[in-house]
Amino acid sequence: MGGIAYVNGRYLPIAAAAISVEDRGFQFADGVYEVIALHRGVLIDEEPHFARLSRSLAAVGMAWPMPKPALRAVIREVARRNRVDDDGTLYLQVTRGVSPRAHAFPAGLRPTLAMTARRLPAFTFERARQGVAVITLADQRWSRCDIKSVALLPNVLGKQRAAESGAFEAWLIAGDGTVTEGTASNAWIITKGGEIITRPLGHAILGGITREAVRCLAAENQLALVERPFTVAEALAAAEAFLTSTTSFVRPVVRIDDKPVGDGRPGPLTERLLRLYMQRMDQAATVTARARAGVKG
Amino acid sequence: MGGIAYVNGRYLPIAAAAISVEDRGFQFADGVYEVIALHRGVLIDEEPHFARLSRSLAAVGMAWPMPKPALRAVIREVARRNRVDDDGTLYLQVTRGVSPRAHAFPAGLRPTLAMTARRLPAFTFERARQGVAVITLADQRWSRCDIKSVALLPNVLGKQRAAESGAFEAWLIAGDGTVTEGTASNAWIITKGGEIITRPLGHAILGGITREAVRCLAAENQLALVERPFTVAEALAAAEAFLTSTTSFVRPVVRIDDKPVGDGRPGPLTERLLRLYMQRMDQAATVTARARAGVKG
Repeated sequence: MGGIAYVNGRYLPIAAAAISVEDRGFQFADGVYEVIALHRGVLIDEEPHFARLSRSLAAVGMAWPMPKPALRAVIREVARRNRVDDDGTLYLQVTRGVSPRAHAFPAGLRPTLAMTARRLPAFTFERARQGVAVITLADQRWSRCDIKSVALLPNVLGKQRAAESGAFEAWLIAGDGTVTEGTASNAWIITKGGEIITRPLGHAILGGITREAVRCLAAENQLALVERPFTVAEALAAAEAFLTSTTSFVRPVVRIDDKPVGDGRPGPLTERLLRLYMQRMDQAATVTARARAGVKG
Repeated sequence: MGGIAYVNGRYLPIAAAAISVEDRGFQFADGVYEVIALHRGVLIDEEPHFARLSRSLAAVGMAWPMPKPALRAVIREVARRNRVDDDGTLYLQVTRGVSPRAHAFPAGLRPTLAMTARRLPAFTFERARQGVAVITLADQRWSRCDIKSVALLPNVLGKQRAAESGAFEAWLIAGDGTVTEGTASNAWIITKGGEIITRPLGHAILGGITREAVRCLAAENQLALVERPFTVAEALAAAEAFLTSTTSFVRPVVRIDDKPVGDGRPGPLTERLLRLYMQRMDQAATVTARARAGVKG
């Protein structure tokens, strides 16, 4: 589909952007990544994404591929070259580098840094509020899902199962029957009493950037939020359910395993959170755009 | 260094052998692999490796990258171009292919096939019998370790921890305290009563090709073998311990977490199994080399 990719210092048409066959990202899933949304050309939540990248890199013992200011500049250049001047996403992957295949890694490898970006249709409330269906599957992933690694095969297989079932996402069920999260999103319910519930952070889930934003928005708006695990039965008995991710924002979940949640339509509190989230995104874009204009003017 | 890699129809110097930045193997660990040993230029256990590749591909819903006879021909050509005319290994990786990043996969992708090969120092009994140390770590991997996927980050981190401890391998411990396997090998003990013990096949371990060969050799030689899980305490109380893999063959384990196994030296039954394994490898190489000469002659 075209587009420009960045790989280790070079900006290339994506069809020509290449990784070594001995890149440890390719042979060992020895890498981490981030996906950052852009709204009106502005990176949303850049700081939390950098903080999470920092945690992922530290957890797997990898160095930053370049100083952070340089990385910020490359990110902007990749967005610019892909004309993401309105809404879109930026994908950033860091791997441990290239070396002859062996599990343990030699010291002093130069990390591989790869980036792509794509324009997306304008982020509108109307599109974002469309309710989606989820299926449930056993959570087969490793025990450090808090690390945003590219070892995503179980996530891929889960998301594919969802797609083949006509669902948008799969919610993953731990051995104790509780929902951990989706294959690429965090999972939430809202009880009939109006309590917003999501699983607490820990090794079993990724600390979603949108999850954290929603947590803050709930606090700022005096909404009751409890971090605790919940079961599928609780979700089906709930008033509302939703999922959060960088690209889905706050997405109403209206069916679980083909059974309706609440009245089977997007719930009012979910829509309120989505609206708050999109307002926050608008404000961030506006503030940054103004600051940028100020610097230039 | 150097060497020739095969990627999707082309044989290239390894430094020029490239994978797309959007290969699903790179972005999602959406791929499987095999490592096959060559002895005197002959592929060892080619059929079981093909059978396991077939199981891995089926488990993740991927197609063969090309018909098997063609794949066999490419494997031999990669070995030939890398001058693996004596001892060495061949690495083969199949990924779901290239597509714009999205967890679920579009239909009809062309799989990526990549291969490398390397010459190794001659496989000698003296080198293979050197006892090694292992450490133990919690098994953090996903619940389908029977699939030989490239989602190897936990294995990489475990093997690195072992290397940093001056050990050769890490044995991974399940929640119930039993040893599943090593990061890149199967785990075995031999009781003081002479019983050879290894964990039964299942989702928790990879069905090692060398594991299966040793199982057959034990049966052929009337050695008592029991497939059951064992604990680290049992291993430390055992007479002998060893690990098996395509490149380690039957390797004596003489220390676990810095405590000696038995008298801290390679055990006699382990050495017998190693000798049987290497004889079998010699025979396979001889038979194949003769057949090849016969066809040519």
